[in-house]
Amino acid sequence: MKFEVTILGSSSATPIFNRNPSAQALNINERLYLIDCGEGTQQQMLRFDVKPSRIDHIFISHLHGDHYLGLVGLLSSMHLNGRTKPLKLVCPPELKEIIDLQLKYSDTTLQFDIDFIFTDASRVQVILDNPDIIVETIPLDHRIACTGFLFREKRRLRKIIKEKIADLDIPVEYYAAIKKGADYLAPNGKLYKNADITIGADEPKTYAYCSDTMYNENYFAQISNADLLYHESTFLNNMLDRAQGTYHTTALQAGEVALKTHAKKLLIGHFSARYKTLNELLDEARSVFPDTELAVEGKTFVIGD
Amino acid sequence: MKFEVTILGSSSATPIFNRNPSAQALNINERLYLIDCGEGTQQQMLRFDVKPSRIDHIFISHLHGDHYLGLVGLLSSMHLNGRTKPLKLVCPPELKEIIDLQLKYSDTTLQFDIDFIFTDASRVQVILDNPDIIVETIPLDHRIACTGFLFREKRRLRKIIKEKIADLDIPVEYYAAIKKGADYLAPNGKLYKNADITIGADEPKTYAYCSDTMYNENYFAQISNADLLYHESTFLNNMLDRAQGTYHTTALQAGEVALKTHAKKLLIGHFSARYKTLNELLDEARSVFPDTELAVEGKTFVIGD
Repeated sequence: MKFEVTILGSSSATPIFNRNPSAQALNINERLYLIDCGEGTQQQMLRFDVKPSRIDHIFISHLHGDHYLGLVGLLSSMHLNGRTKPLKLVCPPELKEIIDLQLKYSDTTLQFDIDFIFTDASRVQVILDNPDIIVETIPLDHRIACTGFLFREKRRLRKIIKEKIADLDIPVEYYAAIKKGADYLAPNGKLYKNADITIGADEPKTYAYCSDTMYNENYFAQISNADLLYHESTFLNNMLDRAQGTYHTTALQAGEVALKTHAKKLLIGHFSARYKTLNELLDEARSVFPDTELAVEGKTFVIGD
Repeated sequence: MKFEVTILGSSSATPIFNRNPSAQALNINERLYLIDCGEGTQQQMLRFDVKPSRIDHIFISHLHGDHYLGLVGLLSSMHLNGRTKPLKLVCPPELKEIIDLQLKYSDTTLQFDIDFIFTDASRVQVILDNPDIIVETIPLDHRIACTGFLFREKRRLRKIIKEKIADLDIPVEYYAAIKKGADYLAPNGKLYKNADITIGADEPKTYAYCSDTMYNENYFAQISNADLLYHESTFLNNMLDRAQGTYHTTALQAGEVALKTHAKKLLIGHFSARYKTLNELLDEARSVFPDTELAVEGKTFVIGD
């Protein structure tokens, strides 16, 4: 199953040329899940060939503009481009009021329904559960209510070994049970153990998205053992005071989060515009957690790779 | 006096790569006036070196997203970058409600004051009058309330001929009156006629910004003889029905507006994303009004040139 994330924006609030505010497109089994939608996300989607028509779920972490100001434009474009299928929008409840007001004053009635699913940053919620994925909110520690999102793949069914199907002439109506782990009793009375006729699916993978937040161990247990941890890393650690004052994290701290939560890999982003190049941020995080990458616009990361 | 406009965005609502929704930076005597502020305007300002700190006036024509969705991000960045000087914001009254709601939910109190000046699309208003310029609203004909803006330079003072000052030893306290047209009576009793010691300033120029609107002769008298007329031109004339159905103008009609209002020069923009190249739109407008140019991102047009 495909499970990968493409970075559409990596900057924090103040704009900087060639970086965009937060947005990521998560591809789960060829369905797209948009995480945050900063201003200009539509242009980034055009640039990196991420089709809005394939997005059925949008997740907004919080109501600072660099995480959602591209949303109303995106909804409006979906409408103008003829979308009729519903969209699930996971967000703080106040966002509905903002969207409704903007649509009202532009005299726009969307041609598609938005199914709002409201987050509550005071607790963990299972916010989405479909055949591919379970998504939990991650209560973060920011200046305003903010939730990250934890995407857990569902355990996949076992696969029946092709040659066994042919050799044993297994009837199709047995497939479902065998994929779930049943043994196969052939018409001649011989029992074939499940382990001998199937191979296991890959272990389910997890992607933890943590932006924006200051370093706070409260969310560590929930995100532990993530295959890929995206963690904001707004400043270098020589600006730790400023990071704490603005409820953000330093690159060094992001590395510590990854280390302490036993992440398999760390992705850092939400970079302050003061950093024209990102090498120092990367080096600082890697000094604590070597398997770190930069969330750079246009790059795709396979989760579990 | 400098009087020129730089195009920051030329597209209509549906996004297209490498075009941005409406925004223009008008430079009047080295003060910047931003006209409309579509999503991504901040990035365009970075791209074309238009400094937000030099903007003291913003004009929003109407509340369709492609004309204002970049505004809250821009205000927020001005705040984050330490702006304290007030900003005049000319806009439909409902925009204040939208801005207030978004600032409230992001828990942001701007460090600078916004002096709101509300437009009323049912009538012509003199909406700004300062030593450099008088600005009138232009009631347009769009699906929702929409005003264009007519920027008229103030008549400049006459200039005293440098050599005359030296030759006649004119005292500095006489300058102001002479610049306004007074003659100079020298201490020896000789009268120097104003026309002999001064040269006239350039004729005041006008810039008319008309977006969004359908073709409607009601606004023709007001914008007549503009030195530069920007007129929306969303479609080719083979889509006249669609233009009328959506309250927009075709390139042919934009040419007719320029012709009938005796514009000196026409600038067309607000192009539909269906036009990947713009030559046909330009050719169509020029077939009626030859002195037409495309409002292309990054281009600067001197008004009255």
